[in-house]
Amino acid sequence: MPVASGVERVTIVGLGLIGSSIARAVKERLPQAMVTGHDADADVRATARELGFCDAIIDSAAAAVADAELVILAVPVGRMADAAAAIAPGLKADAIISDVGSSKAGVADALAKALPGHVVIPAHPVAGTENSGPAAGFATLFEGRWCIVTPGAGAPAEAVALLSGFWQALGAKVETMDAAHHDMVLALTSHLPHLIAYTIVGTASELEEVTESEVIKYSAGGFRDFTRIAASDPVMWRDVFLANRDAVLATLQRFNEDLTVLQQAIRRGDGDKLEDWFTRTRAIRRSIIEQGQDDAAPDFGRKH
Amino acid sequence: MPVASGVERVTIVGLGLIGSSIARAVKERLPQAMVTGHDADADVRATARELGFCDAIIDSAAAAVADAELVILAVPVGRMADAAAAIAPGLKADAIISDVGSSKAGVADALAKALPGHVVIPAHPVAGTENSGPAAGFATLFEGRWCIVTPGAGAPAEAVALLSGFWQALGAKVETMDAAHHDMVLALTSHLPHLIAYTIVGTASELEEVTESEVIKYSAGGFRDFTRIAASDPVMWRDVFLANRDAVLATLQRFNEDLTVLQQAIRRGDGDKLEDWFTRTRAIRRSIIEQGQDDAAPDFGRKH
Repeated sequence: MPVASGVERVTIVGLGLIGSSIARAVKERLPQAMVTGHDADADVRATARELGFCDAIIDSAAAAVADAELVILAVPVGRMADAAAAIAPGLKADAIISDVGSSKAGVADALAKALPGHVVIPAHPVAGTENSGPAAGFATLFEGRWCIVTPGAGAPAEAVALLSGFWQALGAKVETMDAAHHDMVLALTSHLPHLIAYTIVGTASELEEVTESEVIKYSAGGFRDFTRIAASDPVMWRDVFLANRDAVLATLQRFNEDLTVLQQAIRRGDGDKLEDWFTRTRAIRRSIIEQGQDDAAPDFGRKH
Repeated sequence: MPVASGVERVTIVGLGLIGSSIARAVKERLPQAMVTGHDADADVRATARELGFCDAIIDSAAAAVADAELVILAVPVGRMADAAAAIAPGLKADAIISDVGSSKAGVADALAKALPGHVVIPAHPVAGTENSGPAAGFATLFEGRWCIVTPGAGAPAEAVALLSGFWQALGAKVETMDAAHHDMVLALTSHLPHLIAYTIVGTASELEEVTESEVIKYSAGGFRDFTRIAASDPVMWRDVFLANRDAVLATLQRFNEDLTVLQQAIRRGDGDKLEDWFTRTRAIRRSIIEQGQDDAAPDFGRKH
C-alpha cells in the first residue's frame, strides 16, 4: 500500500467500535506501522490490552501521542474538545490530528481552538454497526465504505494526501468536501434516519393499545429494521444531534412536510399518489446495491 | 406433520412473493398435498409454470379451486373482493377460504360479502422480503415467523384448527386475535415503519442541497436500511394504507407527537432527554434478537 507508506506511527484516542476497528485495520493492512492507543476510561484500556489490537495502550493521552505522526480522535463529538486538550501537551509540532466524528463543522472549530498551530484535518468514515465498545470493532469495517475528509481552507496539501492515503490503505474510498456540506449530506443520510428510528422505537414501546411483547413478536413486518439503528450508542448520537442541530432540523422539516403529504393521501384515500410515491422510492434501493453500499440478498440475507 | 395431515388439496390464488412461497413450502413440507395455483396475470402464470412450484397452474380461478379443501388468496388487499368473486363459482361447499393480507378487518368484510355461506378465516403471515413476484418466493420464508389468524365470531373451531395446523406445518408459529386488534398491532409494527421509510427515501431524493449520487454513496450511515423497506411492492402497500387507514393514522399521530418532543429537545440542546430516549430504545432490539425475530450479527451480518 504505497499510498500510506509514510505513516509509521499512529495513535488512536478513543478505543470504541470505530477506534478499535481502525487499530485492527492498521495492524492487518499496514503491518509496518506502530499503533498506540489511549482511552480516557481505564476499563476500556484494560479490555483493549487484553484484546491486543494495539502495539501499546498508554494510560496518559499526552504520552500516547508523543511520537505520533498521525493522531486520530475517535471519541463522541461532544468530547472532542476535551480529548484535544488532553493530547495537546504531548503532540509533536508536525503531527497531523484528525478525527472520525459524524458532524464536522463544530468539530473543526473545537479542534482548531484546542490545538492552535497544529495541522488539523477532520474526517468521517461513513461506516459503523449498532454495537459499541472495544470488543465490537473489526478490521474490515471500512472496506468499500466512504471516508469523507473535510480540510479547512489552510490545510497543507501533503497532510490531506497523507490522511487520504491512510484511509485508502484501510480499504476506504475517500471523498473531500467542505464541512458544512458534509453536515447537510450526513444529516440526510445518517442523522435523520437515526432520529426517525429512535422515535418510532420509542413510540412503539409506549403505545397503550399494543403490548411490548406484541411489538417484539411481530417485528419482522418492518419494525425490526428500525430497531437495529435505534440500538446505536446513545452518547455518540446525543452528541451528533446537538453538534449538527441546524442541518438535522432543516432535513427534519422537509421530512415532516413529506410525511404530511402522505398522511393526507391516506386520509383522502388517494391511492394514485401513494402508488406513485412508492414506485419512485424503489429506484434508489437499486442504485445503492449497484454501487456496493448494501447487500442485494432479500431481507439483507437474514436467515429464515 | 400430523397437525396438517388433513390438507390434501390446496389452491393458491395470487402467485407473487407470498403465494409462491406458500406453494414452495407446501411441496417441501407437505409432500402428500396437491397444490394448484392461479394468478389473474397470464405472464405470472407462465412464469409459475416454468418455475414449477405448483402441481398445476390453472388459467381460470373458478376451475383452480374446484377440488380444494383450502384456498388461500395471496393478492393485494385491494383485490381480495375481486379474487373472491372469481373463485366463488368453483368452490366446494365445505372449502375453507383464507388469505394473507396485511390488514384484516376490511378483508374479513370483503370476503364475507363475496362468499356468503362459505367458511372464511382470514390470516396474516408476518413475513416477507422487499422483493416481489413469483421468482422471489422461497420455501423457508415462514420458518420461525408468526402467522396471525383472525377468525370471526362464528368460525367453526375445526376449520380454525386446520388452518392453524397448515401454517404450523409450513414452519410458522400461530397466534389468534381479533381483526381490529391485529390491525392496530400491524399498523405499529409494519405499516407505520413502511410509511416512514417510504417518506424518508422520497425526501432524500428531492432535497436540493444534496444530490442523489451523494445520498447513494453515503447511505451506509443509516439511510440504506430504510431503502430496503421502501423497495417493497407499491401496489400491495398502497392497498394496505387504504385498507388500514384508521389504525395507520392513529399510530402516525403518536409518532408525530414523539418526533416533536425529540425535535424540541434538539432545538433546545437538551442532551439528557435525548440520551434517556436513546438508551430506552436499545432494550427492544435485544428482546427481538432473543426471540429469534432478527439476526444478532452486527449490521445484519452484511459483508464488509
